[in-house]
Amino acid sequence: MTFPVVGMVGGGQLARMTHESGIPLGIRFKLLSDTPQDSAAQVVNDVVIGDYRDLGTLREFARGCDVITFDHEHVPTEHLRALEADGIPVRPGPDALVHAQDKGVMRAKLDAIGVPCPRHRIVADPADVVAFAAEGDGFPVVLKTVRGGYDGKGVWVVDSAEEAAEPFRAGVPVLAEERVDFVRELAANVVRSPHGQAVAYPVVESRQVDGVCDTVIAPAPDLDESLALSAEEMALKIAKELGVVGHLAVELFQTRDGRILVNELAMRPHNSGHWSMDGAVTSQFANHVRAVLDLPLGDPRPRAAWTVMVNVLGGDYPDMYSAYLHCMARDPQLKIHMYGKDVKPGRKVGHVNTYGDDLADVLERARHAAGYLRGTITE
Amino acid sequence: MTFPVVGMVGGGQLARMTHESGIPLGIRFKLLSDTPQDSAAQVVNDVVIGDYRDLGTLREFARGCDVITFDHEHVPTEHLRALEADGIPVRPGPDALVHAQDKGVMRAKLDAIGVPCPRHRIVADPADVVAFAAEGDGFPVVLKTVRGGYDGKGVWVVDSAEEAAEPFRAGVPVLAEERVDFVRELAANVVRSPHGQAVAYPVVESRQVDGVCDTVIAPAPDLDESLALSAEEMALKIAKELGVVGHLAVELFQTRDGRILVNELAMRPHNSGHWSMDGAVTSQFANHVRAVLDLPLGDPRPRAAWTVMVNVLGGDYPDMYSAYLHCMARDPQLKIHMYGKDVKPGRKVGHVNTYGDDLADVLERARHAAGYLRGTITE
Repeated sequence: MTFPVVGMVGGGQLARMTHESGIPLGIRFKLLSDTPQDSAAQVVNDVVIGDYRDLGTLREFARGCDVITFDHEHVPTEHLRALEADGIPVRPGPDALVHAQDKGVMRAKLDAIGVPCPRHRIVADPADVVAFAAEGDGFPVVLKTVRGGYDGKGVWVVDSAEEAAEPFRAGVPVLAEERVDFVRELAANVVRSPHGQAVAYPVVESRQVDGVCDTVIAPAPDLDESLALSAEEMALKIAKELGVVGHLAVELFQTRDGRILVNELAMRPHNSGHWSMDGAVTSQFANHVRAVLDLPLGDPRPRAAWTVMVNVLGGDYPDMYSAYLHCMARDPQLKIHMYGKDVKPGRKVGHVNTYGDDLADVLERARHAAGYLRGTITE
Repeated sequence: MTFPVVGMVGGGQLARMTHESGIPLGIRFKLLSDTPQDSAAQVVNDVVIGDYRDLGTLREFARGCDVITFDHEHVPTEHLRALEADGIPVRPGPDALVHAQDKGVMRAKLDAIGVPCPRHRIVADPADVVAFAAEGDGFPVVLKTVRGGYDGKGVWVVDSAEEAAEPFRAGVPVLAEERVDFVRELAANVVRSPHGQAVAYPVVESRQVDGVCDTVIAPAPDLDESLALSAEEMALKIAKELGVVGHLAVELFQTRDGRILVNELAMRPHNSGHWSMDGAVTSQFANHVRAVLDLPLGDPRPRAAWTVMVNVLGGDYPDMYSAYLHCMARDPQLKIHMYGKDVKPGRKVGHVNTYGDDLADVLERARHAAGYLRGTITE
């Protein structure tokens, strides 16, 4: 057997879908998962149960892997450096990944390479937040802990010094950002390989509900061609300048005055790229695998005029399987992707993809299916 | 967890690809495999190693499965009946599956329901083969053992009584068939569910080399529309009359005088349907899973004007992974499906799919990739 072993740290749905996409390539997939019940651990053969925060566990896991990659960005940077020192290729590597782990480092780097961001700086205390507000258009101000936030957690929108107290309680550095007057959120997804090849997926529109991604439309409707191109170029530039290997998601604000600003970075397959599983020639997951193995990348172009992804969140209704009957009978073209996770209110437990020529129809089908699975639509 | 468990008997590539296609549905997949090295056993989490010919092993495996289905047709019919008597849904069931296990039973049933087949009858000995030849257009005659053949094994084309001796040596019944004067081979693939819903994939052309499937073109080029329709109707009729649940492949001869005759049946995902993984809205594997769970079936229609599948056979060159660099760089739209099997000359170790608007281009790309992976094309 000459086929390599890809080791993935983290047993979430991104690892599950990466495994699914890697099976056709004949690569061997090894998983480090917190528990045997984790989403990916249910469907992978070679699973190690262990704590990614423990260097000994990581080292033991890495033995026999040809490359290590990630379902999440939480592995401590120093552990990644230790694995690299052991001679294990870590992709993305620690020098790149730190920009997705630490929003302060990320903002400083994007400033340095001239990528437009919301006005920002690290703030010391609530009084400093007041000063930051006064330097710009005043309150509200967005405060973020530099590490550990996701899906709206670790983010506060504050209107006063009093409200600004909370984010400092965790004792980690806090980043202040202007609240951007955006018309919508976009995402530019790119994949880059160690030898420097890179591909860009079409820029998508990403709609959030309560800070959580709800709907992604590929490509972003009514997006000016030059703005789309500049967003793709921006993402490719970030990937290159930060030395990213694998999938990079660049979450963007499209401002009322027609600019594009970087909101967040993620260096792994990303929710804004799930549409590509059914909507692109090569999915983000397949291209992530190809990139970390330094294989030539696959075609990121869309296969349909429109592809829509809607997340399935847990609702009050735990039995999603029984909803399959209605959803599948109503729409034989529907693509369901469930993660094997227990249903808890608000938890991402799956997504659906639809595609076609008529955006209104494609959107309606995806929303109906996701709502029916969740239990918020009952007919 | 309300999601069902699908148990699949047999660890070959069909089980591997069924698992891959079942992951998005969130169903749990349990595998009975001969060895841990089998194609599917490498990528499935819940694997039982055991012998499918042993009823005790099957019974133990079936415990905790909501339904049992198959990677191959070799499980003894009486074992299937025993599992059914235990209350385990077996899909396809023994009464259907026997038609794919025993060519004599299959021919008798197709005669009874009026489906056109090559002239045939069970023959007793070489003298009887001579009599069979004399009843029609003489030699050559095709002889087949009624059980156990596949990929050209268990099939002889004989020109005389002397040559007809060999097939009888195994001591199993032998079926004689006229050698059909065909212009090409076609396959009609359908999927049927327990509640009677059925879908038909477009009829494909299947090209064999040395008795092994080499190339499949979907849809079959230049096929008269009424002939295509009658082939689909024939396959749907067979599925219904034989009580098939799951995927049914009907291998067909298109005769020089414009008729369609049934060659073989397979009641499982089939090589002639591999194109559907990248070329249809819903793949044969996904639809097989939906059928055995009695879920509404997915859309079988093609996503591209032309999809071509070419099998990758083992050649003299064992290191197929290194060929990825060239194949992927040459054709970023290429879809590779490798089975994780050791390379042995002539063994099916994978397949490639290509699709697009220009059949000549799509064919060339698939042939080049398969040849390069095999080592018969080196540039």
